[in-house]
Amino acid sequence: MFEEIIKNVYAKTPLVHTITNYVTVNDCANILLACGASPIMSDDQKEVEEITSISNALVINIGTLNERTIQSMLKAGKRANELSHVVLLDPVGAGASTMRTSTTFELLKEVKFSVIRGNISEIKTVAKGSGTTKGVDADVSDTLTDENLDEAISFAKGLSAKTGAIIAMTGKIDLVADSKKAYIIRNGNAMMSKISGTGCMLSTVIAAYCAANPEQLLDATAASVCAMGLCGELAYDKLIKNDGGTSTYRTYIIDFMSKMNTEILQGGMKIESR
Amino acid sequence: MFEEIIKNVYAKTPLVHTITNYVTVNDCANILLACGASPIMSDDQKEVEEITSISNALVINIGTLNERTIQSMLKAGKRANELSHVVLLDPVGAGASTMRTSTTFELLKEVKFSVIRGNISEIKTVAKGSGTTKGVDADVSDTLTDENLDEAISFAKGLSAKTGAIIAMTGKIDLVADSKKAYIIRNGNAMMSKISGTGCMLSTVIAAYCAANPEQLLDATAASVCAMGLCGELAYDKLIKNDGGTSTYRTYIIDFMSKMNTEILQGGMKIESR
Amino acid sequence: MFEEIIKNVYAKTPLVHTITNYVTVNDCANILLACGASPIMSDDQKEVEEITSISNALVINIGTLNERTIQSMLKAGKRANELSHVVLLDPVGAGASTMRTSTTFELLKEVKFSVIRGNISEIKTVAKGSGTTKGVDADVSDTLTDENLDEAISFAKGLSAKTGAIIAMTGKIDLVADSKKAYIIRNGNAMMSKISGTGCMLSTVIAAYCAANPEQLLDATAASVCAMGLCGELAYDKLIKNDGGTSTYRTYIIDFMSKMNTEILQGGMKIESR
Repeated sequence: MFEEIIKNVYAKTPLVHTITNYVTVNDCANILLACGASPIMSDDQKEVEEITSISNALVINIGTLNERTIQSMLKAGKRANELSHVVLLDPVGAGASTMRTSTTFELLKEVKFSVIRGNISEIKTVAKGSGTTKGVDADVSDTLTDENLDEAISFAKGLSAKTGAIIAMTGKIDLVADSKKAYIIRNGNAMMSKISGTGCMLSTVIAAYCAANPEQLLDATAASVCAMGLCGELAYDKLIKNDGGTSTYRTYIIDFMSKMNTEILQGGMKIESR
Repeated sequence: MFEEIIKNVYAKTPLVHTITNYVTVNDCANILLACGASPIMSDDQKEVEEITSISNALVINIGTLNERTIQSMLKAGKRANELSHVVLLDPVGAGASTMRTSTTFELLKEVKFSVIRGNISEIKTVAKGSGTTKGVDADVSDTLTDENLDEAISFAKGLSAKTGAIIAMTGKIDLVADSKKAYIIRNGNAMMSKISGTGCMLSTVIAAYCAANPEQLLDATAASVCAMGLCGELAYDKLIKNDGGTSTYRTYIIDFMSKMNTEILQGGMKIESR
Repeated sequence: MFEEIIKNVYAKTPLVHTITNYVTVNDCANILLACGASPIMSDDQKEVEEITSISNALVINIGTLNERTIQSMLKAGKRANELSHVVLLDPVGAGASTMRTSTTFELLKEVKFSVIRGNISEIKTVAKGSGTTKGVDADVSDTLTDENLDEAISFAKGLSAKTGAIIAMTGKIDLVADSKKAYIIRNGNAMMSKISGTGCMLSTVIAAYCAANPEQLLDATAASVCAMGLCGELAYDKLIKNDGGTSTYRTYIIDFMSKMNTEILQGGMKIESR
């Protein structure tokens, strides 16, 4: 399983156009390089279409969005769709402000996404903007547990059917689904929530893996989620040995992504499908 | 002294809305997480009031300010005042350009701050914008020493009386004062000036500590200043053992903040009051 | 050779006004401090002229440019020229979009640069905007090798003659030239391309070294390129011992810049002139 996915990233070195927040943008650039891809950041309306054209994938992350960059997201997204590029939406903070929620809805209306990745709360906001019935949303808890997993799987499959996108809901347990199949992933470490940007970084890695594996978007997304979680585990083991804190932990996570390969992934991934 | 301050941060996990420069924003986000709080960065006029409403404190840092974000600072500050949130001003570079100085003055006029933190030069600019008499300003040197400490204390107490804010003047010796009481803090290490962002990071930690201890703003500010300085000392000791340079030093400072607790703080703080 | 260059940086602590992208801006600030200089970041039209006036050098880096910051670049550049400050252009991505190319051309037309640093592809775009004949451009390969070195040297010397700027073309082999003399530098490590920002960081170090050595711009630029490459080598050796990855590598590079001095530079630099 996932034999070729990482190899393809290294073989193709996908260029990932990333429109993202200024908080974690440096980590996103560095983890893209670490995972075998290349980053290009550009958010001005006058150039985003050209930059997307020379890229292999587009990430739209709405953290620290503003009126100027929203227009750039829409333009880049439409152009990427015309070129059939992989386009990923990371709806950071959707639901936390009217602006973020309405931007998420506008993006969902104007751009066809290959993958949507967020925490459960953000994904539930996405569902509201995709016309999924209210009842279903309300049924899904904000924390994924073994008890509510079946419900969450139905919800994610349903949302994938509505949007046409792979849905990646990340938290203590991660869930990656298309309309027919869901992966449940139990990699990761609780300390990942003590550093800024693990979600943003994961989104860029997913885009890179998907760009290098366009025929296997579901598996490429699941492999990315496993890889990122596994980096969090390996980094934690090393951190404990070296008595480090949260900033060293961030460094180690990116370090382990730069050493990731098929063998490490297959030896450490904790994944099942339903 | 300071028994409950750090415990309260961990117990309440304050959400700190941070409008700040793009140079050190990532360090600010990570040190907020490290100290037991949560960061949210947002600077667009359309959403800052909503984001501030769901937060527990607001940091306004004017490094890399621009015309768009100045309006956001004003809007967020006024809304935070309406909600009686802790609001901290970090007047980065006030005095270095007309724009930074006039923005500082406008912010002081329109927003009531709980805490103002800067180096002596920046705080003196704040004093000019608060109607403190010129003579007093001119009397305070740009470097705090044992010789001019008494003058600086009177200056800081006077400025606190004028502004209603806790004044935190940081440098080789740090001074934290309200109108009646001043703490003199001698934690820290000279190497902290060789990394970008120690001041910005400290400001966010102060906001987090104050948000979790709203009835003890003076003590919470002083505890933050001690904690940050102590992290600088502990990081320096570890750095020397490991033969590291300035970038490793930054990592270690945040690491030690993620390990800070009441015992470490009380064992290492160098503080007196006058 | 280069005896006084680093000493002068530490003696003068040049303040480097840096208008740059938000991806690697923190690394730029930290490496400026590490190399003995001071950073100031500011990109608003209303203050850039004042900020440049109090600085000793200006870096214009066009990564993540936008319409607002382009105007700031032009204003700051003209003001720096009036004050005879060192002004460095880093044309990130010139040639990748019409906006970046035309901005590069406009900057070349409106501002006189002391140094222009980029990879070969970017420098070739600069040449197009400087009226260098097409034939010459086309003759220079995008990868510098021993085989095409002579051609590249003529090209760089010619471009320096046209622009009046020191030309620094960096890649596997680095080339630093004025109209009469070229240095060929073979420091560095291939892993430097696996972290974001080594080029941006180098540009700021060049500006700092040149600001402290205004009478020796060619040598100061060459010394910076050697120093940065050497940091990459020293960091790599330490990384291998500690089994680190790319993020630790970035940390070590800045660490070694904070320890750089004349002895280390002279002991490790691999430089020849033609």
